[in-house]
Amino acid sequence: MNTTTGEITVLGLGEMGSAIARVFLDRGYRTTVWNRTASKAAPLVEAGATTAPTAAEAVAASQLVVVCLLDGTAVDEVLSTLGDTAQGKVLVNVTSGSPDQARAYERWAHEHGAQYIDGKIMGDPPYVGTPNARFLFSGSAFEAHRDALNLLGAVSYHGDDAGAAAVEFLAQVAMGYEVLLGFLHTLKLVRSEGADVTGFADRFAASLTAYQPLLTSIAKAVESREYPPDLGPLDVQFALMDDLIGHRESVGVEAVRMRETRELMARRIADGHGGEGFSGVYELLAGAPNQRAR
Amino acid sequence: MNTTTGEITVLGLGEMGSAIARVFLDRGYRTTVWNRTASKAAPLVEAGATTAPTAAEAVAASQLVVVCLLDGTAVDEVLSTLGDTAQGKVLVNVTSGSPDQARAYERWAHEHGAQYIDGKIMGDPPYVGTPNARFLFSGSAFEAHRDALNLLGAVSYHGDDAGAAAVEFLAQVAMGYEVLLGFLHTLKLVRSEGADVTGFADRFAASLTAYQPLLTSIAKAVESREYPPDLGPLDVQFALMDDLIGHRESVGVEAVRMRETRELMARRIADGHGGEGFSGVYELLAGAPNQRAR
Repeated sequence: MNTTTGEITVLGLGEMGSAIARVFLDRGYRTTVWNRTASKAAPLVEAGATTAPTAAEAVAASQLVVVCLLDGTAVDEVLSTLGDTAQGKVLVNVTSGSPDQARAYERWAHEHGAQYIDGKIMGDPPYVGTPNARFLFSGSAFEAHRDALNLLGAVSYHGDDAGAAAVEFLAQVAMGYEVLLGFLHTLKLVRSEGADVTGFADRFAASLTAYQPLLTSIAKAVESREYPPDLGPLDVQFALMDDLIGHRESVGVEAVRMRETRELMARRIADGHGGEGFSGVYELLAGAPNQRAR
Repeated sequence: MNTTTGEITVLGLGEMGSAIARVFLDRGYRTTVWNRTASKAAPLVEAGATTAPTAAEAVAASQLVVVCLLDGTAVDEVLSTLGDTAQGKVLVNVTSGSPDQARAYERWAHEHGAQYIDGKIMGDPPYVGTPNARFLFSGSAFEAHRDALNLLGAVSYHGDDAGAAAVEFLAQVAMGYEVLLGFLHTLKLVRSEGADVTGFADRFAASLTAYQPLLTSIAKAVESREYPPDLGPLDVQFALMDDLIGHRESVGVEAVRMRETRELMARRIADGHGGEGFSGVYELLAGAPNQRAR
């Protein structure tokens, strides 16, 4: 079933909102736009969009309403002006925000007779409408509007929990910085020893294909709470850590994660898990239940 | 030129040394072995190896001598017993140790009329002799003995600097723990929000192919000290960091690297580099010259 009509409203015409509106315009959607500073609508109006004087009037014009504002505060303000016009609409909020904010917007939507889809965007405005912009969506209203939302880029759906797109986004972005900041520190180490950073980068990049099955198997170990040797048994891995940390200290490169790794390994070994894999240190991490929460 | 003879000596018969000796035995090398605790030689002698009563006598038997001991202390002790027998030999030391230790062993070898090759092993003893064991080598004597050393697994050569294999090893292992420990923390985040850890792992693993060109371009940026927008301009990336850190704190997941990322970004932006890429934070890291050292 696809209930998407050929009409769409976009609230918020920053670079990202404008790029989104333009994709729908280019695909022949009757597109209504609104922005607090009305002048931002000019290029879109020139391209065929209709501008509305208030957010409520813009929402009234279409069933599908994309919300793309600066932050949660801006979303709160705009929602507070909608009154009854949200009734029967589908709000697709792609504004940055936390999983709990997404869940709160969904509650607001349901209380006002609207459906809610949360979205998070990985990619820059110029790529919107191409596979180089990734759109993560969640919320039970998604399926009925998949075809329209697919126009925006490489779309993935993360489930009924409205917060799921934000969870995926925050987790993917965090992994990006884990890898990239660790990589920059390691380039410092490589260079401090007079070795070639681009050669090292090429070899590490090539080795990433070997990480793919490893990461999958580690996630399965975490899920099952059985931790087979992955990089080898922990007590063998542990034997390397003092050399590794000592070397970093000798060249003045930070060793935050390496010291943490060593300490977690030592605790697992002391607990009798020296024959198991690295994945077992998951049991020692703070911050979440070891069993799936919901 | 390949000067490798059909004779080899292996000093040290732990699991790894024994696996190495067995590869050469299986390939028809006349193999001489020595271990401090002589009984460890028994299975190899049964398979056709010759055991020597002292390390010096074992070294005297072959031109190519693989040293595979527990640690640097053990290597120092064995070298001190060799006297003149090292003269004219090629020492291939695959014992764990730092780049500086490797360079010191090379100096010792040259002072005693021997050549030196340093090696580091990524992989477990059962995989020695297969492509699943990676052997990293460095030192100017490597090329003449490449054919023999190729028998040990997937062999790579990292240059004349005897310390280069250890540098590569320490850098690759460190990246492994950066990725894997960051990944376990992120799995905690995913699970704390009730999402599926194996689904997230599969998607992140699939995304690693996109990291390959990114890492290569970041290394080139570091090499050239020109830092084009990589994940987008820094000031756009920075706008996410408070949400990211706040969310982690709200679910009790650690944010060590995220706070460090935020602080480094803020400093780069304050220095006028907000339009450049993440790679530019390299300039702020401690521990190594920004220009290549040698």
